[in-house]
Amino acid sequence: MRNKVYVSELRVPFAEVELADGNAPVRLYDTSGPTDFEQLPRKDWVAARAAAGLPVTQLQCARADIVTPEMEFIAIREGLPAEVVRAEVEAGRAVIPANIHHPELEPMIIGSRFLVKINANIGTSAVTFDVAEEVEKMRWATRWGADTVMDLSTGPSIHATREAIIRASAVPLGTVPIYQALEKVKGDPLKLTWEIFRDTVIEQAEQGVDYMTVHAGVLLAHVPLAADRVTGIVSRGGSIMAAWCLARHEENFLYTHYRELCEIFARYDITFSLGDGLRPGSIADANDAAQFAELRTLGELTSIAWEYGVQVMVEGPGHVPMHKIKENVDLQQELCHSAPFYTLGPLTTDIAPAYDHITSAIGAAMIAMYGTAMLCYVTPKEHLGLPNRDDVKAGVIAYKIAAHAADLAKGHPTAQAWDDALSKARFEFRWQDQFNLSLDPETARSYHDETLPAEPAKTAHFCSMCGPKFCSMKISHDLKEYAAQGMRAKSAEFVSSGGQVYLPVVAG
Amino acid sequence: MRNKVYVSELRVPFAEVELADGNAPVRLYDTSGPTDFEQLPRKDWVAARAAAGLPVTQLQCARADIVTPEMEFIAIREGLPAEVVRAEVEAGRAVIPANIHHPELEPMIIGSRFLVKINANIGTSAVTFDVAEEVEKMRWATRWGADTVMDLSTGPSIHATREAIIRASAVPLGTVPIYQALEKVKGDPLKLTWEIFRDTVIEQAEQGVDYMTVHAGVLLAHVPLAADRVTGIVSRGGSIMAAWCLARHEENFLYTHYRELCEIFARYDITFSLGDGLRPGSIADANDAAQFAELRTLGELTSIAWEYGVQVMVEGPGHVPMHKIKENVDLQQELCHSAPFYTLGPLTTDIAPAYDHITSAIGAAMIAMYGTAMLCYVTPKEHLGLPNRDDVKAGVIAYKIAAHAADLAKGHPTAQAWDDALSKARFEFRWQDQFNLSLDPETARSYHDETLPAEPAKTAHFCSMCGPKFCSMKISHDLKEYAAQGMRAKSAEFVSSGGQVYLPVVAG
Repeated sequence: MRNKVYVSELRVPFAEVELADGNAPVRLYDTSGPTDFEQLPRKDWVAARAAAGLPVTQLQCARADIVTPEMEFIAIREGLPAEVVRAEVEAGRAVIPANIHHPELEPMIIGSRFLVKINANIGTSAVTFDVAEEVEKMRWATRWGADTVMDLSTGPSIHATREAIIRASAVPLGTVPIYQALEKVKGDPLKLTWEIFRDTVIEQAEQGVDYMTVHAGVLLAHVPLAADRVTGIVSRGGSIMAAWCLARHEENFLYTHYRELCEIFARYDITFSLGDGLRPGSIADANDAAQFAELRTLGELTSIAWEYGVQVMVEGPGHVPMHKIKENVDLQQELCHSAPFYTLGPLTTDIAPAYDHITSAIGAAMIAMYGTAMLCYVTPKEHLGLPNRDDVKAGVIAYKIAAHAADLAKGHPTAQAWDDALSKARFEFRWQDQFNLSLDPETARSYHDETLPAEPAKTAHFCSMCGPKFCSMKISHDLKEYAAQGMRAKSAEFVSSGGQVYLPVVAG
Repeated sequence: MRNKVYVSELRVPFAEVELADGNAPVRLYDTSGPTDFEQLPRKDWVAARAAAGLPVTQLQCARADIVTPEMEFIAIREGLPAEVVRAEVEAGRAVIPANIHHPELEPMIIGSRFLVKINANIGTSAVTFDVAEEVEKMRWATRWGADTVMDLSTGPSIHATREAIIRASAVPLGTVPIYQALEKVKGDPLKLTWEIFRDTVIEQAEQGVDYMTVHAGVLLAHVPLAADRVTGIVSRGGSIMAAWCLARHEENFLYTHYRELCEIFARYDITFSLGDGLRPGSIADANDAAQFAELRTLGELTSIAWEYGVQVMVEGPGHVPMHKIKENVDLQQELCHSAPFYTLGPLTTDIAPAYDHITSAIGAAMIAMYGTAMLCYVTPKEHLGLPNRDDVKAGVIAYKIAAHAADLAKGHPTAQAWDDALSKARFEFRWQDQFNLSLDPETARSYHDETLPAEPAKTAHFCSMCGPKFCSMKISHDLKEYAAQGMRAKSAEFVSSGGQVYLPVVAG
């Protein structure tokens, strides 16, 4: 059985899994959001800070040695000291995306010392849109473990869709403001101006958007570097800005007005997600000159944002073969002064449309192990269409797997206890505990029930793989008893004798 | 459109994908098997070798500097010189599982210099069995790309099931003979004897089984090392032999009679798959003393098999967190003298039953990149039940992705052309080509059609993600034209000037 519990007066949520046979309950990180938003205390924290004349952004607070309630909340959530949270934010190695106008937020942190986070993209398009459906996708994504949600809507009703999502969302909401700005100029990139973009950012800032992707690193001089690629520029934001720069032969206005943008972001504590507009869209284009030229610029932009006390994360690819993944993290960490890396996958091969949640979960797990702080999910519909409810779930689950596999590999202090609890339940034939501890209890239970549906099978000391007559798990239990009776002494003797395990091979 | 084509008089199969707009067709490795087994020439090759008094095993032939027709066939299939095939077999770094009684075989090779292979497990159990269904699973698995199939049947009708599968199978068939031996003693491991096992091996050898898993490395002295594990012994074969050893306090009869086994295997050219009976069954148990003690013994057994001219591969885990994966390959390659490694996944976390094709595809891709030659698939039903048709397909596709991602990372000479062809098709809006080049054309097509079903959408220069008004791919094409007109010169100038891409940030 899974219950939602709240810890401390900060109301830090956890999913608590009750276990059978005297095993201690397990508390899991919980992103699913409250049923009653009124009870969330963040609006009081923001108000109290304002009343006391304290700094606005989490970064500014961290520098002033202030541990904010958001940081304390996160410390409990992550099982780490609050001072670690503050120090990582101060150093720019972690961000807490938390617009002052998003009181519904349950604060979370993105940084390589913390649990790896995942983002789910949702949003309407010109071809298909429905506001209620997008809110439901947000709820669905966070139910399965999305740590943030990005609203990438491009069609009509952008403002209303976003408003509905934010007011219902306990996770940070990210956007790509250039998409809405483009709608305002009826889809013609050449009509975009700094003023239209700025006003769009302010409109979204007032609504409570917590982080925004800004493609300020796509410089006029970078664009020709992408001309000979197999797949050109695949980032929508990147191609919009590239088109603008080339057509007008002017420098990207996001770059030339970047300091003004920093001033706006600082007023709301919006976190930059510096977009990788020149990310590779195929294996052939990975780690090329265009991509890395932009990354250098993103490093420069990171430092400038920090001057204003604005938090920054940096976006990364995309499509990268496995042997080129580590270089992406190493270079990003070096050039961007250890700001958190936030990557889309990467997909490790191009040959499996309809399965890109898997091609990219491989790359995502690896890039997270190497230090990437947040993973933007990819759904089975990538390259083919917009994700529906099932696709959102498939993407989130694949990415929770990637993120958790990386947490294990990085040795996050709370990660392995979850695996151990599930494996112990498995070994002890506590089927219900095994299901309840699963990332997706419903599906695990239904798969088991396909071959052994009866309720007694849930307590049976066998499963359908081997059947009742022979079961390796059962034999292991016998071995364990046998060992308890006498082999343990022999084992110690064996180990102390140097562990020599070779016996002569007797022929014949 | 995909067509099956045969190359050379050896009848080497490929799936040829015709492409539009003058693009050259792409030939893909094909495991789906012929419709007419009579046309396969292998029975003549085996007969000719016997008539000429040549050695029986591929390893013996390789040592005698003979390039067998099987090796020539494989050279064409892999796009590598036949001499490379022979030399790798001679060195023991690659195996060609090919029982002389399996004339239906289309030969394939397993070794780290070649394309990474995948195996699909099928088989009946005491709870669920149906011979025709298992044959159909084999056909289904190879249709989607399984390079070998293992029949792990444990219930009744084992002999008949296996016979039906082999006679219909163009891929090597593997078995775990101890399962059938256990059936012969009505499921009581303590009644197992060398003689019963030997007779079972011969029975299967006569049918044409190409490789057999033998748990000869589970020594009496190793077993206590597993006593304190979280999940004990999870390999069925391993637990059978451990139970036998402990109950009788005798050494494993597979170990003491191993040289007799080598003599039998040499007569049929059966390849050893040295089983890892003590592989870890959870993250907590990975890379422990029990696992590595057995691995040392498997290294010893590898050398002994080679004395008899018998080919060997070595099985590996299982459940391993990402940061412990590389050690598994490095140690196996060192201790087992570079014999091919054949791993089950590994699963990189325990928390996702119902998604273990994904948890393990991550580990499989990584372990293959580090040098593992064959990956045993894991289906979504792992730990929960027996895979049905959909599960088999899901497992095979996930593992084809892992294997191909590793081929790319290792730089196999033919690997990237596939990705490039698909990405080029994607960039040029050749939707049908993109689908036909996909690992699973049907699913890719159906996902696309969910939002844009009309036939004209297949040639449309946009998709449902952005809609017709704005499309990043389209903008990239415009950029490409623009670049062709003048930016290319500028680009060259830019690069030759040292690639300086920084412009001053203008405030205000």
